[in-house]
Amino acid sequence: LRARQIAVVGGGAGDPELAELAEDVGRRIAAGGAVVVCGGRGGVMEAAARGARESGGDVIGVLPTESPDDANPHVSHAVATGTGQARNLAVVASADAVIAIGGEWGTLAEIAFARRLERPVVALESWTVSGRGEMRNAPGIEVAASPAEAAERALALAAAATQSPSAR
Amino acid sequence: LRARQIAVVGGGAGDPELAELAEDVGRRIAAGGAVVVCGGRGGVMEAAARGARESGGDVIGVLPTESPDDANPHVSHAVATGTGQARNLAVVASADAVIAIGGEWGTLAEIAFARRLERPVVALESWTVSGRGEMRNAPGIEVAASPAEAAERALALAAAATQSPSAR
Amino acid sequence: LRARQIAVVGGGAGDPELAELAEDVGRRIAAGGAVVVCGGRGGVMEAAARGARESGGDVIGVLPTESPDDANPHVSHAVATGTGQARNLAVVASADAVIAIGGEWGTLAEIAFARRLERPVVALESWTVSGRGEMRNAPGIEVAASPAEAAERALALAAAATQSPSAR
Amino acid sequence: LRARQIAVVGGGAGDPELAELAEDVGRRIAAGGAVVVCGGRGGVMEAAARGARESGGDVIGVLPTESPDDANPHVSHAVATGTGQARNLAVVASADAVIAIGGEWGTLAEIAFARRLERPVVALESWTVSGRGEMRNAPGIEVAASPAEAAERALALAAAATQSPSAR
Repeated sequence: LRARQIAVVGGGAGDPELAELAEDVGRRIAAGGAVVVCGGRGGVMEAAARGARESGGDVIGVLPTESPDDANPHVSHAVATGTGQARNLAVVASADAVIAIGGEWGTLAEIAFARRLERPVVALESWTVSGRGEMRNAPGIEVAASPAEAAERALALAAAATQSPSAR
Repeated sequence: LRARQIAVVGGGAGDPELAELAEDVGRRIAAGGAVVVCGGRGGVMEAAARGARESGGDVIGVLPTESPDDANPHVSHAVATGTGQARNLAVVASADAVIAIGGEWGTLAEIAFARRLERPVVALESWTVSGRGEMRNAPGIEVAASPAEAAERALALAAAATQSPSAR
Repeated sequence: LRARQIAVVGGGAGDPELAELAEDVGRRIAAGGAVVVCGGRGGVMEAAARGARESGGDVIGVLPTESPDDANPHVSHAVATGTGQARNLAVVASADAVIAIGGEWGTLAEIAFARRLERPVVALESWTVSGRGEMRNAPGIEVAASPAEAAERALALAAAATQSPSAR
Repeated sequence: LRARQIAVVGGGAGDPELAELAEDVGRRIAAGGAVVVCGGRGGVMEAAARGARESGGDVIGVLPTESPDDANPHVSHAVATGTGQARNLAVVASADAVIAIGGEWGTLAEIAFARRLERPVVALESWTVSGRGEMRNAPGIEVAASPAEAAERALALAAAATQSPSAR
């Protein structure tokens, strides 16, 4: 049986505050027995991967490029999609739950695709969105106040999702 | 020389209020000499396509499926990407400016990808987003109050973008 | 109603012999009333596009990159997929019939995807393939001896395909 | 450090002869210390995955769909690309070497993409291709006579590729 898979999505720029949050999140997801899925590059992606490996967990890096060698050194299983930013869809589609950290445009695309695919999203220092009509309150996005809360909620949401997969 | 290309993005569900806005927008874009790019299916996409054809304009439909026959009947040039929701990236990447109508999750993904690629976005009855840090005010997204304003702004932004393409 | 769409696939390198064939093919497809679909770049793609425009036809360029400005100057309708070599799938999926010219690896991928999607293929100075079992004779690939024969066969095959679309 | 990754590509139909070859190949690749990358579905993909797991190895399944639950039960790490047949590009791009088994059209697309990306290919009961010009002898495709030979060659080619990654 596969382990649960939780995506940690966020920008590739080197914001030290966000990297610290991401590393903590990665550590806690791996400690909770789940595999971290990420975009495989730097910044939030690399920090989450580093944290997961420190806890002995696996990290799937889903790259935009055509070579697994482009993965950061903490990725244990590299998928080179060759499809550029369309890999953002693959990152969240591969996850049972998604944690979004920080506020790049690519991160917003991942939040949107995650909800399009009915994956639960936990936001940590990330985008606030409000829609119109039924989307007014952006259902399915929870805001977490800390890495501990983000990881705990994502692990619980992933467990719930994989116990009733027909719901998605 | 190619004509300017303006994407009209929005959901496939049949919201009559949004369809009316989209048809008006499509008509005005074609009247302004630009090609409408859309996702090729129903709802906002079909309404924008219908409006453009009423004004004698061309409509590029960029489909998620593997067959051009899946395009709505107002699409004049159909591209079947075969890549599912990843076609949302193709729709906005193909545009000099983007008009977002309504509030489905796929529409939010298209707004996010448009800004990721530095395409100007005009929002009409659509998402409100706010980020953190530099993204706090979600730069590059204008809110329009009417189809006329949306089309006028998008045509102007597309003209500016294609006159200084190095800016993107 | 959309016009029939015929893909002309081939490499981007500047082989003058192949370019001459491709330009002739493009001219004849447009003269036959069909839109040329191509990969939007140089070499065979640009030559086919040039030929089609000389005959007054439209050319859809389906690009691997994130910008319509990357299209060759003969493309009238540009789609920037942003998905790299995965655009090869989009080129053939968008076509009612496919003409393959020359022998790059990307061209072989397009022939294979075309047959995977049950599009008829006409090969002109291109790959020879033979499989095992049912694929031994590579059904659905015709060899043409000239641009005239290639265009004539593709126009006929596209007409047959669009008259009984359920067959694909 | 990541383990080497070897793709086993082949059709999803249940040909028992090919499944036996694929299971043997998967077993040997895992025994050789490499991760099997496959398309994650049935047929050759499932058999190769089963073999690898029997030897205690990991299996990355790169799916065309939007859900990791679509993976066969032997996949240990599932990536749901959401991009349909474009995932064929991702399967071979993620590999240091590729083994092709059997002769579906999708398999030919994977062989072609593998060579487009300069990955070495070993063919076992698979396509024979010949091109024109420089491609006449389809460089980079070796034919193996047995699963043992296919696995041995692929492991050696992957080792050579990862020792001089600049060559690709």
